[in-house]
Amino acid sequence: VRRSTEEARVALLRAAFARDDPRVRLGIGDDAAVLEPSPEALVWTVDAAVAGVHFRTDFLSRSELGYRATMTAASDVAAMGGDPIAVLSSLVLPADFDDAELSELAAGQRDAADELGAVVVGGNLARGSELSVTTTLVGRASRPLRRDGARPGDEIHVAGELGMAAAGLSALLRGVRPPELAEALRAWRRPRARVAEGIAASGVATAAIDASDGLACDIGHVAEASGARAVLDESALIEGPLQDAARALGLDPLELALYGGEDYALLVALPPGKSVAGFRPIGAFVPGDGVWLRRIDGRVTPIEARGFDHFAPTP
Amino acid sequence: VRRSTEEARVALLRAAFARDDPRVRLGIGDDAAVLEPSPEALVWTVDAAVAGVHFRTDFLSRSELGYRATMTAASDVAAMGGDPIAVLSSLVLPADFDDAELSELAAGQRDAADELGAVVVGGNLARGSELSVTTTLVGRASRPLRRDGARPGDEIHVAGELGMAAAGLSALLRGVRPPELAEALRAWRRPRARVAEGIAASGVATAAIDASDGLACDIGHVAEASGARAVLDESALIEGPLQDAARALGLDPLELALYGGEDYALLVALPPGKSVAGFRPIGAFVPGDGVWLRRIDGRVTPIEARGFDHFAPTP
Repeated sequence: VRRSTEEARVALLRAAFARDDPRVRLGIGDDAAVLEPSPEALVWTVDAAVAGVHFRTDFLSRSELGYRATMTAASDVAAMGGDPIAVLSSLVLPADFDDAELSELAAGQRDAADELGAVVVGGNLARGSELSVTTTLVGRASRPLRRDGARPGDEIHVAGELGMAAAGLSALLRGVRPPELAEALRAWRRPRARVAEGIAASGVATAAIDASDGLACDIGHVAEASGARAVLDESALIEGPLQDAARALGLDPLELALYGGEDYALLVALPPGKSVAGFRPIGAFVPGDGVWLRRIDGRVTPIEARGFDHFAPTP
Repeated sequence: VRRSTEEARVALLRAAFARDDPRVRLGIGDDAAVLEPSPEALVWTVDAAVAGVHFRTDFLSRSELGYRATMTAASDVAAMGGDPIAVLSSLVLPADFDDAELSELAAGQRDAADELGAVVVGGNLARGSELSVTTTLVGRASRPLRRDGARPGDEIHVAGELGMAAAGLSALLRGVRPPELAEALRAWRRPRARVAEGIAASGVATAAIDASDGLACDIGHVAEASGARAVLDESALIEGPLQDAARALGLDPLELALYGGEDYALLVALPPGKSVAGFRPIGAFVPGDGVWLRRIDGRVTPIEARGFDHFAPTP
């Protein structure tokens, strides 16, 4: 087991992340990274993955952790219709975290960055008692998508799965791994930022958000910011794989789809009659406020727009 | 004691950080911040302040922590000759961290951002066992300063104090606060990123770095990247306030100046005969490698370029 000095670890990361990109002038090795001037607006986000809070270390390999932390941060850039350029990674590593683990973590980050078409250009290394990966991403966006532009009449479309990640996490928490949950486990462990879909939607969609806290909560943010009511169609929310995963776990698929969270699916509001490749309709905005559900039997009723709250009082 | 939900805390921060800036299109409240297109190169950095590692919670008020975390991150932008535009703040807060503490922390961040001419445009909130503040900053730089351009014959100049922050930290660690250490305490608690000096030096300096790990270590990075030897003048390193602080602590002022760290002074290499307002000469680059010291008695000898290593084996 090898645990190198900080300088040697920076060299390890520099080698792992070396990439040429015309949008990046200077990567790892100076006081700061240098990006070329940008003719387009820049979208910029930061996201933290803290052990014991956002993940359990026995639920993810180091490589999966690196991949997942990068993709979940990138999902915010995708939700703005942005094209990721560059990544900074700030790591807090426990004293016993060794070089092999660091290499594995970096490999996962690099795989995600490669898929995103982005370059890891720097970061920070610190010792700490709690493993954490804080990822900050910059992307370019010619027409950034916001939360507050949805209008009554717009349709709600989604790219990506709903409820599957929560089913996967539920399986991990129970310690069960039946074969019919393989896809759900993959959904939680290897989420995919919907970058191409976000870029395709920008210029068409009137609003967008990524479903990280759960569909009901996140579409509720759009409804509130836009001053409209979101009405979701139950019949459109539950697809075959979610049915199967929910059955294997004895869980309600509707509950998973609405409140599961961590899907990193992309939700957009589209003007009536518009569609974008990769998206499917799941509801519409109408005058009013809040989040409502059109049930299979035709009734339309309000639902709670709750999501995960880091600072909620313990029940 | 009030501990609000995540949403209420985001609203608190949104109010604390509200600022208009023509370079910022969209701040807190969406999936990501939006910055206007940049005609200049962008310099971009991230820095973490972890309780128990970078600071002790009894050494800094919450406001000082927010100010310090922002300034130490900005120091990297200053060292590239960058003009800070915007800040993202990722906070990990223990369960008992209350709203008053969060407001105080944010006030310190806002004060620092105001001094830097930057806007806090977003961030992330998470629960965790270990308080940490991870700050990422973007600045614009027409002529970014790098570490690798110093040439033999260039002079080494510094803006800011050397050794004073280490004296202040030493006083805190010993629990002593004689009046003659007030300035040293301030140097550790309220470091200042040398933004104006960095901008003034860009286009003149051949290399730059901020003295965060200690003068000897940091000038050693420039020497190594540039392929030259740094020779520091002992007589130029020790100023009156450092003499006084070192005497009050019974410490060697030279040791503090060379190895103290956390000064966030700005070190630049200037072509022979050049000077920049706010900087004073402390040495020169010559052919060779490593870091050497010209002692008061005229001897010139190599010195160790060691600095703080997060992952050094425990002695």
